[in-house]
Amino acid sequence: MRPPMSHDHLFLKACRRQPVERIPVWMMRQAGRYQPSYRAVREKVGFLELCRSPELIAQVTASPIDEFGFDAAILFSDILIHLPAMGLDLTFEKGEKGKGDGGPKIANPVRTRSDIEALRIPEPARDLPYVLDGIRAIQRVLAGRVPLIGFVGGPFTVASYAVEGGSQGFTRLKTMLYADPMGAHALFRKLTDAAIVQLQAQIEAGAQAVQIFESWLGELSREDLEEFVFPHLARIAEAVAGKGVPRILFSTGTSTHLAGMARLGYDVISVDWRIPIAEARAQVPGLALQGNLDSTMLLGPREPLLARVRAILEAAGHQPGYIFNLGHGIQPPTPSENVRATVEAVHAFRP
Amino acid sequence: MRPPMSHDHLFLKACRRQPVERIPVWMMRQAGRYQPSYRAVREKVGFLELCRSPELIAQVTASPIDEFGFDAAILFSDILIHLPAMGLDLTFEKGEKGKGDGGPKIANPVRTRSDIEALRIPEPARDLPYVLDGIRAIQRVLAGRVPLIGFVGGPFTVASYAVEGGSQGFTRLKTMLYADPMGAHALFRKLTDAAIVQLQAQIEAGAQAVQIFESWLGELSREDLEEFVFPHLARIAEAVAGKGVPRILFSTGTSTHLAGMARLGYDVISVDWRIPIAEARAQVPGLALQGNLDSTMLLGPREPLLARVRAILEAAGHQPGYIFNLGHGIQPPTPSENVRATVEAVHAFRP
Repeated sequence: MRPPMSHDHLFLKACRRQPVERIPVWMMRQAGRYQPSYRAVREKVGFLELCRSPELIAQVTASPIDEFGFDAAILFSDILIHLPAMGLDLTFEKGEKGKGDGGPKIANPVRTRSDIEALRIPEPARDLPYVLDGIRAIQRVLAGRVPLIGFVGGPFTVASYAVEGGSQGFTRLKTMLYADPMGAHALFRKLTDAAIVQLQAQIEAGAQAVQIFESWLGELSREDLEEFVFPHLARIAEAVAGKGVPRILFSTGTSTHLAGMARLGYDVISVDWRIPIAEARAQVPGLALQGNLDSTMLLGPREPLLARVRAILEAAGHQPGYIFNLGHGIQPPTPSENVRATVEAVHAFRP
Repeated sequence: MRPPMSHDHLFLKACRRQPVERIPVWMMRQAGRYQPSYRAVREKVGFLELCRSPELIAQVTASPIDEFGFDAAILFSDILIHLPAMGLDLTFEKGEKGKGDGGPKIANPVRTRSDIEALRIPEPARDLPYVLDGIRAIQRVLAGRVPLIGFVGGPFTVASYAVEGGSQGFTRLKTMLYADPMGAHALFRKLTDAAIVQLQAQIEAGAQAVQIFESWLGELSREDLEEFVFPHLARIAEAVAGKGVPRILFSTGTSTHLAGMARLGYDVISVDWRIPIAEARAQVPGLALQGNLDSTMLLGPREPLLARVRAILEAAGHQPGYIFNLGHGIQPPTPSENVRATVEAVHAFRP
C-alpha cells in the first residue's frame, strides 16, 4: 500500500534538493519525554511495550505533528528493536540518566565468532509485525499530511550495544576490529543484512524516507571508518536505492569525514553541531544537508535560541537541499514552548 | 631554579618546529593504572593523597621514563587539583568505570552568580605547595634526562566539572552559557586566572613545557567556542608567552575548529584520532602538531597497532614540528608491552 502522500511534499523536495517555498523542519526524538502527552503514555506502558503496539506507535508518532507542526513524522521505534529476533536478550532499564527512555541492556552480548554466527537475520513480517502494522497505522492517522521517515541503526552503532551489552562505551567492539577484523566484518555484515530487510519492509509498509542512525561513528578514525563501516553503509544505501525514497545518513562527531560519507550513496547527510553548516555544505556540494542546532540550546532562554536558529537558516536555507533539524535528539528536560518557537521560526524564514 | 636541561632536547626542538634526529614520543596518562608500578603505589594511597605528596609525585612521574623511554615527563597531578583552594569540596570516588583513578565529585558545585563570585583564585605557593615541591622533586629524579611538562585544565573543561558537580555531562554548564552569558564569562575568567597562576608557578618551579587540557571543547559549537572559550584560551597562551616554554593546547572532538585554535597563540596543537594527521597539518601549517593514535589500538594485537603507528609517522614525521602521542589518555587495561613496542617503533622511525 502506498500512502496518499504527494511526492511534492516540501520535506521530500528538500531531500531531492529541489526548491521549496519554506524550509522543512523535524527533530530527532520529536516524540519523546519532553512532551507531556508522551510522558502520559509512558506512565501506563514500558518502552518496549510501546514499541510493540501499533496503535500506540501511531499515536505517539503523530502527536508531535499535531502539537508542533513538524514537516515530517518519524516512526516511533528503537534502533535495537530487532535484536531479540536476532537472538539477543534485550531489555530497557527505567529512567536512566540522560536517556529519555532508559538504557538498553543485553544479557547475552556478542563476544565470540560463534556468537556472531548464531545471530539470525530477522524476517520483519514475522518478527517485527508491530513495526510494519505501526507504519500502516501511522499513515492512517497522518492521512497524507506529512511524510513518514522509517529508520534503522547503523551497523557500527548497533554493534556497539550488541557487543558491549549496553551503553558501556566502545572498547570491546573497537578491540574486536583490531583483534579479529574478519569477525568484526562478519558481525557488521549480519547487522547490515538486518538493517536492509527492515528498511525494505518499512518502505513496503509505507515509509517515504529512511534514516540510518549511525550515531557513534565519531568514535572511529578515518582508517577504521573506511575499512570497517563505510562499505557496509554503502551497501545499505544501494539496497534501498531507486525506490523514490530519500536516504538520510545521520552520525555525530564525524564532521572531518563528510567528503567520505558523501560518497556512500545517500541523498541527505545529517550533521551535528560541531561544524558550521556552511562549511558542511561546502564539503558535500552534491547532497542535501540536515541539521545542525545544538539540542542544548533548546534548554535555554528563547532569545539566543532563536538567534542561533536564524543564523543556521541564513547560512543554509538559501540554497536548495536543506532540512532544519538538531545535531542530535531533543533532550528530555526541553520546554515544549522552545520546540514550538523553533518550528515557528523555521517556518517564518523565506528561503 | 632552572633545571639542568638542555634547551636542545628533541621534544623541545619538535615543539619549536626545529629538525630532530628522531620523533619525540610521550603519552597522555603515561603514569597510570596500566603500569603495575603505579597500581602498587595506589594500593597504599588514595588519588588525592598521591597528588599531594611531592615524593610520590616524583616517583610516579619518572617511572614511565625509566620503564618505557618516553621523551618527556608530565607532572602527575589532576586538572581539578586547585578546586579545593578555590572553595570547592572535591573528592574522588574509587575505581569508577573507564576512569583510571575514579570519578571526581564536587559536593558544592557552582550554580549561581554568588557561587562564582565566591571562588577564590589560588596562590600556588601557599595552596598547592606539593605541586611545586613535586616539580622540584621530579627534576631531581629526572636529572635532565627529559623535559618536564606542566599542565592545567582549560576553563571550559574545569567548569564542566565545577558546574555539573562531577562527570555528569555538560547540560548545566552549556545552559549557563545561554541563560547567563555574563555569569559564564565571569566563571571562565576566574578559572582562567587560576590556570595562569598555576602555570606561572609551575614554570617557575621547573616545568619546561605546559599543556592545557581542554578535553571537552568538542561539546561546543563554533559560535560558542569563539564567544565563550577561545578568548580565555588566548589569554592563557599570552600569559605564559616569552618564557621559552612551549605551550600545547589539547582537546578532543574539535578537528573542525583547528584553524581557529591555531590563532590562539599556542606553539603546539594536540589532535585526537578523528582527523588524519596529514589533514590536521594542512590546517595548521604554522604550528607543531601532537597526536594522534587512537588509544584503543593499544588494547589490541601488536601488528595492526604498529602498522597504524608507522602510518602516522609516515604522514606526520617527515616534516619538522611533530610529537607522537595519543588522541586521548592511555586506557587502564592497556598491556604495557604495547606501550613499549609503540615507543620503540617511534624511536626506530627516521624523520
